[in-house]
Amino acid sequence: MLEALHFDEKGLIPAIIVDKPSGNVLTLCYMNKEALKKTLETGEVYVFRRSQGRVMQKGEISGHTQTVKEIYVDCEGNSLLIKVEQKVAACHLGYFTCYFRKFNPRTKQLEIVEEKVFTPEEAYK
Amino acid sequence: MLEALHFDEKGLIPAIIVDKPSGNVLTLCYMNKEALKKTLETGEVYVFRRSQGRVMQKGEISGHTQTVKEIYVDCEGNSLLIKVEQKVAACHLGYFTCYFRKFNPRTKQLEIVEEKVFTPEEAYK
Repeated sequence: MLEALHFDEKGLIPAIIVDKPSGNVLTLCYMNKEALKKTLETGEVYVFRRSQGRVMQKGEISGHTQTVKEIYVDCEGNSLLIKVEQKVAACHLGYFTCYFRKFNPRTKQLEIVEEKVFTPEEAYK
Repeated sequence: MLEALHFDEKGLIPAIIVDKPSGNVLTLCYMNKEALKKTLETGEVYVFRRSQGRVMQKGEISGHTQTVKEIYVDCEGNSLLIKVEQKVAACHLGYFTCYFRKFNPRTKQLEIVEEKVFTPEEAYK
């Protein structure tokens, strides 16, 4: 599979992470070759955390890990779609998905449309 | 909403496009501010096509356009999730989604798991 993939000039490829049971999009993360290899080897999602410049397991600190169920590659090899089983929640702000803010076309504002499922202050202390 | 978004150093933000009726992830595209504004104004998905260096409507040539139903923003304002109604199919290779290739962990190969829904040679002639 690695040969079918195009990593960008920073050595990264975006991966859309979907909760397999519900079908909800959880987050968009980035992998370098090392993160993808660790993901394939362990069956748990590893990402290249751009803000920290290093490979880490998704949920390393909070325990909110993602177990890989299925991996898909797009037509051009420019992105991945990974279906997972999510422990607790994907978003570090306490929501199940990172897409908890919905655009309201009337007010032009973002509205929170999910309930928090954990308390970030406790998960990350 | 625009203020909540972080466009990257190339002026782009990734947008995950999901088929609202089925919940299937269709594709990952990139928008610059102009593409996002056109998307908001028209209610149809416009993208910044990186290979051509210009803003164009998704499905401009094939007629396989995407009508916007809902827009979500991630926790950090680094990506969009757009739920759409897809005309015909999203992938230029004839498949409904761009993620028609699934990784088989036993063979380490990619396998095509969707049926073609149109003939590219006819749609793009």
